[in-house]
Amino acid sequence: MKHGGDILTYRHLYDGRIRDFSSNINPIGMPFGLKEKILNGIKELTKYPDIQYRNLKSEIAKYLGCNAGNIIVGNGAVEIINNISFMFNRVVVVTPCFSEYIERPEIFGKEIVKLPLDEEFEINIKLIKETISEGDLLILGNPNNPTGKRMKENELIEIHETIKEKNAFLLLDEAFFEFCPEDYDSIKLFSDSEDICIIRAATKFFALPGVRLGYAFTSKTMVEKYNRIALPWSVNTFAEIAAEHIFNDQHYITSSRDYIAVQREYLLSELRGIENIKVYDTHCNFILIKLLDDNEDNIFEYLAKKGILVRKASSFEGLDNSYIRVAIKDFSDNKYLVNALREYQQWRKQRITQEA
Amino acid sequence: MKHGGDILTYRHLYDGRIRDFSSNINPIGMPFGLKEKILNGIKELTKYPDIQYRNLKSEIAKYLGCNAGNIIVGNGAVEIINNISFMFNRVVVVTPCFSEYIERPEIFGKEIVKLPLDEEFEINIKLIKETISEGDLLILGNPNNPTGKRMKENELIEIHETIKEKNAFLLLDEAFFEFCPEDYDSIKLFSDSEDICIIRAATKFFALPGVRLGYAFTSKTMVEKYNRIALPWSVNTFAEIAAEHIFNDQHYITSSRDYIAVQREYLLSELRGIENIKVYDTHCNFILIKLLDDNEDNIFEYLAKKGILVRKASSFEGLDNSYIRVAIKDFSDNKYLVNALREYQQWRKQRITQEA
Repeated sequence: MKHGGDILTYRHLYDGRIRDFSSNINPIGMPFGLKEKILNGIKELTKYPDIQYRNLKSEIAKYLGCNAGNIIVGNGAVEIINNISFMFNRVVVVTPCFSEYIERPEIFGKEIVKLPLDEEFEINIKLIKETISEGDLLILGNPNNPTGKRMKENELIEIHETIKEKNAFLLLDEAFFEFCPEDYDSIKLFSDSEDICIIRAATKFFALPGVRLGYAFTSKTMVEKYNRIALPWSVNTFAEIAAEHIFNDQHYITSSRDYIAVQREYLLSELRGIENIKVYDTHCNFILIKLLDDNEDNIFEYLAKKGILVRKASSFEGLDNSYIRVAIKDFSDNKYLVNALREYQQWRKQRITQEA
Repeated sequence: MKHGGDILTYRHLYDGRIRDFSSNINPIGMPFGLKEKILNGIKELTKYPDIQYRNLKSEIAKYLGCNAGNIIVGNGAVEIINNISFMFNRVVVVTPCFSEYIERPEIFGKEIVKLPLDEEFEINIKLIKETISEGDLLILGNPNNPTGKRMKENELIEIHETIKEKNAFLLLDEAFFEFCPEDYDSIKLFSDSEDICIIRAATKFFALPGVRLGYAFTSKTMVEKYNRIALPWSVNTFAEIAAEHIFNDQHYITSSRDYIAVQREYLLSELRGIENIKVYDTHCNFILIKLLDDNEDNIFEYLAKKGILVRKASSFEGLDNSYIRVAIKDFSDNKYLVNALREYQQWRKQRITQEA
């Protein structure tokens, strides 16, 4: 289970609607009005996407508040991670992190250095400073996946200072950016930097994992280098069409952020009332949970039979099998999860008593 | 101009409908009924595509007449070319050929051996035999692009014998397969071979370049190797949905093939009546033309101003600037092209006379 969202594999376990807490998608669903836009655009499928993605890049730049010349696009964020990691010889990551930060450079035979987060999954800046050397690529999730933690502004600035000093490069994966509290915007912070690439994506916040649209802000030098190695037409026509709509739907953007903030508070507080689990703080739309004296398989199986798919987290390097990750979904699903977890602990207690 | 279909770049030259002869797409347009299918599937966008592409592979296997376990899928044929060429140290191609056969392995720093086709753009099997050595990847377009020539069955078998003897691997790009006369089916010929991968695609024949769906038949061993390096979710949800429809539209398939066959005869015979060009034989839906005592820029510019986009062919390694490639389109567009080319030769003759 390297990735969440694999409903098909577990379909047989439950007959009704499956509540997928294993992939971190905006529960509000895709922006309204997109359906019509796509319908009108179907005829465009008989043409190639614009090989230079001129309109697409200009829509993204408008949304991000930067120049179109600083934009790269990809077949999901993962293609950008793939292509950037191809360009460097040594890649530094912190663990646990999104598995593709390790997997993609591994496929290219790159040297990979894995630095652990601390016990509360906070970033260890000292360790990063000691490790980074010239020409390295540092990949950080911000917020990090599966921990849900976003760096503080001063932490990020301090890390970037090191990158600059050491002549290294920072790939900041902000695929969950819009779910987070509005504190700082890294694109504004580093608008003139040559040594950073900041990934965003339509996948999570705009609830469009099927569309495959990733994009990033970076320096013009890096854009040029990137274009030299990128596959042609890697972003499909529907993604081009979707971009014309979603980034302009301010109501969707604001209400999604607000809704997730409320549900985050609700779910954190309810989960913290449940026995035998430790619930970590999060800044975005998923929550990492430590199972105390239990393992992911037991709870996964129990919940799957109730139609709930959670993410077993042992596939994240640095986590053992005592963690699960759950998405923050809509109120009714969240309540369903909370109840199921309470029942599970009840059921488990009884089983342990019986076995004793 | 590394690829065709880049209408946006030339949009300013002509005010009306641009007739794009530079990309080789089925002029009939996408299969009827697909629009409805896609409309019904829009809600699926909020889920990830199946990471294992189970339904998609089974639809493709049914269409190709093989097992789903022998199928790989990609973000267009070009992603499959990219990933396969990554696996080998030395890549052998014949020139002229589709530029990505050279470009993708080049990006990975592979050694590339380029063998010329003969003067009539026929394949030189002897040269291939002399060149291939153990562990090589041979990439052949069948039909080849930009020449339009499909290998004879015995030629292909002979080449494959060499591949087998030398313990090499053959990547056969048959993206234009369905446009060709129904002589042999390479997937049937090599159904048990461990050393071949045969690419097909929805892009050209099903007129869906915007959907980005490439697929290939290969051995189970290669499928496994491929899956280890492929990007997750590289095929989008719309491509999954389209596959459920297009491969079952037998009427579309038959009538497209018939229509192209008729238009191919028409266009070949009309073009051969035009002065100062040499028109090569073709088995598929595009035609390579040699300009006698002329260059691609002159004719490109003249035609662009009439709303016709042709493919300048000098970007194909092995061709100088005296070639263009044109797609076979519908009758009215083909007629328009023939007339414009006649006018061009007329205009050119006058200009030459005036200058003399």
